Amino acid sequence: MDAARLRAAFPVCASRAYLNSGTDGPVPAAAVAAARAELDDELASGRHREHFERRQELRAELRARYAVRLGARPEDVAVTSSTSEGIARALNGLELRAGDLIVTSTDEHPGLLGPLAAARDRRGVEVRAVPWDELPDAADPRAVLVACSHVNWVDGRVVPDALAERCREAEVLLLLDGAQGVGAVPVDVEALGCSIYAGSGQKWLCGPDGAGMLWIEPSVRDAVDMPEPNYLSMADPHDPLSGKLHDDARRYDGASLSREANAFAIAAHDVLDEFGFEAVHARARELAGTLARELAARGHDVAPRGETTLVSWRVDGDAEAQRNRLVDDGIVIRDLPGRGLLRASVGAWNDASDLERLLEAL
Amino acid sequence: MDAARLRAAFPVCASRAYLNSGTDGPVPAAAVAAARAELDDELASGRHREHFERRQELRAELRARYAVRLGARPEDVAVTSSTSEGIARALNGLELRAGDLIVTSTDEHPGLLGPLAAARDRRGVEVRAVPWDELPDAADPRAVLVACSHVNWVDGRVVPDALAERCREAEVLLLLDGAQGVGAVPVDVEALGCSIYAGSGQKWLCGPDGAGMLWIEPSVRDAVDMPEPNYLSMADPHDPLSGKLHDDARRYDGASLSREANAFAIAAHDVLDEFGFEAVHARARELAGTLARELAARGHDVAPRGETTLVSWRVDGDAEAQRNRLVDDGIVIRDLPGRGLLRASVGAWNDASDLERLLEAL
Repeated sequence: MDAARLRAAFPVCASRAYLNSGTDGPVPAAAVAAARAELDDELASGRHREHFERRQELRAELRARYAVRLGARPEDVAVTSSTSEGIARALNGLELRAGDLIVTSTDEHPGLLGPLAAARDRRGVEVRAVPWDELPDAADPRAVLVACSHVNWVDGRVVPDALAERCREAEVLLLLDGAQGVGAVPVDVEALGCSIYAGSGQKWLCGPDGAGMLWIEPSVRDAVDMPEPNYLSMADPHDPLSGKLHDDARRYDGASLSREANAFAIAAHDVLDEFGFEAVHARARELAGTLARELAARGHDVAPRGETTLVSWRVDGDAEAQRNRLVDDGIVIRDLPGRGLLRASVGAWNDASDLERLLEAL
Repeated sequence: MDAARLRAAFPVCASRAYLNSGTDGPVPAAAVAAARAELDDELASGRHREHFERRQELRAELRARYAVRLGARPEDVAVTSSTSEGIARALNGLELRAGDLIVTSTDEHPGLLGPLAAARDRRGVEVRAVPWDELPDAADPRAVLVACSHVNWVDGRVVPDALAERCREAEVLLLLDGAQGVGAVPVDVEALGCSIYAGSGQKWLCGPDGAGMLWIEPSVRDAVDMPEPNYLSMADPHDPLSGKLHDDARRYDGASLSREANAFAIAAHDVLDEFGFEAVHARARELAGTLARELAARGHDVAPRGETTLVSWRVDGDAEAQRNRLVDDGIVIRDLPGRGLLRASVGAWNDASDLERLLEAL
């Protein structure tokens, strides 16, 4: 892989050590150009028949790309506006009853914990948060669902291998929050053994804010209602009172992704795809591993992690202030509030100079 | 008002008779410039601390503008991605029980009817659709909610005056679908006497696809849950398991409006605001009235309408084919599937030449 050419596709990398893709990826110039082309056409031509046809085409193209990233069929993938939207939609659509037990971990993102709290407060579901490593043991037959990260946003640990197997044995649904998974590491939803997988478009796939995906295993789809249907989720919008939604995953689509956002997301995806996602994943994993080793070698307390793109380490004192100081120096990482951790997100667009800048500044 | 200068802000008007704002408004050049400025900064600077602060600022600015358009306080207005999202969210959040009666009209948009069908099929609510003029009589105390258009998308009729009064007397909530209301005609949610008002950003306010608003009367807010909370709707995202959402309407905010979309929406709004919305509304109303009279004078069967921006008329034969022929000639209107109607949407950016082009082409 021509790493220098990949890096050159992302203008921000020319000036900053951009290590923040776990929040939002760097934006490739080609993606902004694609968004601008759509905007310019809307400006000149207005927004009517061709506009809506173009929106639909772009949505279908984006769905197809997301499907490849998940190892899934396009008809099983919904295009959403974020990981959080996908998670909340799936949880809200599941038929949960008072007393049902949902197991999660103590290290989950608000995008998962918020909807779990809503299920608890609104529907009387019991939510049990256990330490990450204890997830497999907690997947007992009393639970109806285990909902946790594929790759943990706190430190980059990968969901324990045994979990999917335990869920299958216990006949418990498994929902994976893939915000730090898809795009960052190889994903094959079937091999992961989950029933629901929600992912982001704006992080490791470098798309716009407001892009995401939701995969639901076809045999589970009937158990996941869509209580907030929109024009695009209906099987026949000319007969909306029929209540019929698309048979496939389009029923869970977000209401209103714009042409410009879809074009941005597709173009960003394709910048990476040109180099091959296998190579993109391998390079990011290798660089992240290097950073973790170098941090440890210099005496930093690196949190347990997996073969992923995230590296977190403990800091004394005010983590946010340290983060801000680094950002002001052009080294873009984040802190994890309340945890005394700083987190670097390492992508294929990074290089040794980014890691050195960070290591020297610490 | 300098109508020629307003018209010049919308490049599409130079080449087309753009009479389609009831679907999507024309895009002002200033809005695309604003979106491009945000995209260019994301490209050069990446997306981290300042990016998120900027997104929040833009969202707050957009909320404030939408609030003015609704005659409401910003803290009572949520920024959504569409009218449909707002309607679906409010209906899904209302505590409805099996057997509860919701009254609607036979002329509503799928964005309202779809979520009503979901409430019926999912929660056993009874949905009764009555002819538009019979809405006030149907607002009897047995109903828990009347949900209908502010301005009817089919023909531009305004919600019957007596409805709000009847709803108040009968203690029935009133939800108004404002897709053809806010931006097109003056709106004062208090004077309208509704409890919930959902509107669009991309139609009469000329914003991007993926912009909308939801107003909920403060005293009703406690009765409207937010079952799909996201990071931005939480009172304290660092303590998501608390389940606490913002006390104000931010709890209903859509998950992921991008900086570029917010900037687009604000700039488009401000292009109109520069001329004054009173003048914008008056000019659109006058032009639409002229079109309706001219159509009738030439023997067309104009559907009953109100003092709004929509004009619909009956056509024999294939309405879609006639629409397509007009669009191919640069006259952008729409047909209403299954109703044998063509609909022109008339805005302040239109002028007599647009109306003449349409009248001559028919």
